[in-house]
Amino acid sequence: MTRAEVESYLNEVFPQLSIDGPVYRVEAVGEQTARLHMTISNRHLRPGGTVSGPSLMGLADLAFYVALLGAIGPVALAVTTNLSFHFLRKPEPRDLVGDARLLKVGKRLAVGEVVIFNAGSSDPVCHATGTYAIPPRAVVG
Amino acid sequence: MTRAEVESYLNEVFPQLSIDGPVYRVEAVGEQTARLHMTISNRHLRPGGTVSGPSLMGLADLAFYVALLGAIGPVALAVTTNLSFHFLRKPEPRDLVGDARLLKVGKRLAVGEVVIFNAGSSDPVCHATGTYAIPPRAVVG
Amino acid sequence: MTRAEVESYLNEVFPQLSIDGPVYRVEAVGEQTARLHMTISNRHLRPGGTVSGPSLMGLADLAFYVALLGAIGPVALAVTTNLSFHFLRKPEPRDLVGDARLLKVGKRLAVGEVVIFNAGSSDPVCHATGTYAIPPRAVVG
Amino acid sequence: MTRAEVESYLNEVFPQLSIDGPVYRVEAVGEQTARLHMTISNRHLRPGGTVSGPSLMGLADLAFYVALLGAIGPVALAVTTNLSFHFLRKPEPRDLVGDARLLKVGKRLAVGEVVIFNAGSSDPVCHATGTYAIPPRAVVG
Repeated sequence: MTRAEVESYLNEVFPQLSIDGPVYRVEAVGEQTARLHMTISNRHLRPGGTVSGPSLMGLADLAFYVALLGAIGPVALAVTTNLSFHFLRKPEPRDLVGDARLLKVGKRLAVGEVVIFNAGSSDPVCHATGTYAIPPRAVVG
Repeated sequence: MTRAEVESYLNEVFPQLSIDGPVYRVEAVGEQTARLHMTISNRHLRPGGTVSGPSLMGLADLAFYVALLGAIGPVALAVTTNLSFHFLRKPEPRDLVGDARLLKVGKRLAVGEVVIFNAGSSDPVCHATGTYAIPPRAVVG
Repeated sequence: MTRAEVESYLNEVFPQLSIDGPVYRVEAVGEQTARLHMTISNRHLRPGGTVSGPSLMGLADLAFYVALLGAIGPVALAVTTNLSFHFLRKPEPRDLVGDARLLKVGKRLAVGEVVIFNAGSSDPVCHATGTYAIPPRAVVG
Repeated sequence: MTRAEVESYLNEVFPQLSIDGPVYRVEAVGEQTARLHMTISNRHLRPGGTVSGPSLMGLADLAFYVALLGAIGPVALAVTTNLSFHFLRKPEPRDLVGDARLLKVGKRLAVGEVVIFNAGSSDPVCHATGTYAIPPRAVVG
């Protein structure tokens, strides 16, 4: 799937993602990679002027999913089976970028990692790894 | 801290948690435990009639934090250093309960686990473990 | 499988486990639980008079596997897909017990947790969670 | 610390690592990186002609530690607080290489990742992340 196809697909199957206006933008989709941009607004902030943990986790989860879309096509029924996060530095209260990379795409499981940065920064604020279970007939359409 | 003190403290330091109206309710706080109730609304849903992963992760993160408040008092600056999730079953699209239990409360690190259920059900939908770094002078007031 | 059947099966398929003499003893196998005892000897120790991390990890891995044997029978080809450990306290340099409990046994994945103690102590030294991929025709014999 | 200093230090403080003869060889130590080679022998094997999970986990644990030695010097008392592993592919029953990279070296915590390959192969067999707690006065000598 191309970048535009992925964005269109996300809006269709996950309308809740933009319930408060657009938050995520797909910046790139490669064969086993994806880059997402997340617009940070007040609802994502936490005391001390930082971005909340759940905001980082939501970005990582979606970046994985987009990388998987790029690799195997629309898999609305693919299921995240585990996600593991290391919070490395306090993010500044501004936009984030999530870079996902699949480490393995098997028949039944895909494993990947995501690194999250403040946009324009090269210091990672969060590192995530995760596993997706791919349903027997995942690829539709 | 008592249950009421914890709720009041959360509302004060994390106003974003209730930006769309109340979502989380502290049901119990013990010495090293906490139970939170999460009201699920449309924004937490995903295709197939289930609750989104980030909703589960936000509940787990907060349940940990409340258990830590119960154990060592107000620690607005305690920092989650890692969180790891296993998604066990597809949650039904209705309210959730998160049960947190601290496994260790040291001087510098606290470790705990959270199990999440649909309210009224006994089948866990998510299991999480996590670590908090406790700042040198965490306990204030 | 009974406790004796499990021990006999382990010795048959994992002869390397007892390459230096017996190390692990199956103390109990339930429907979705297992308890293993690990005899600690010099090779498992580390500076400061403690048990090495890899020794704890090996015990957790095996305790999971035994719980899985108890739940679904001989699955020599079941594959650990992820394991995550929190090291809670420095173990004393003596025998360990690992208590495994399955949180989910699905058709394709099983998820569980293991808590490790020094034998006779009730303070956990390590908490582990893990996932097994169950091959399509796992149950033989 | 240089590569030779690290090897000498490991042999001194972790004599159990070579209780059956040399297993690990430090191939490189950078400012926040390390590469270890692990000689696989019969005791590391498992049915189906593969390397055991605990062997992979021991290699990852040690590679982290060596990267930390390279970054902050001899820290015999640094404590692994968590390790999380994804097992990506079945390793072939021959030597392994572990590449460690620190993602963060703070005052109190260091976080890193390790990727493990069969020597000479570029397909990762295991991906690990981990956290070390650094004692207040870690750097000696």
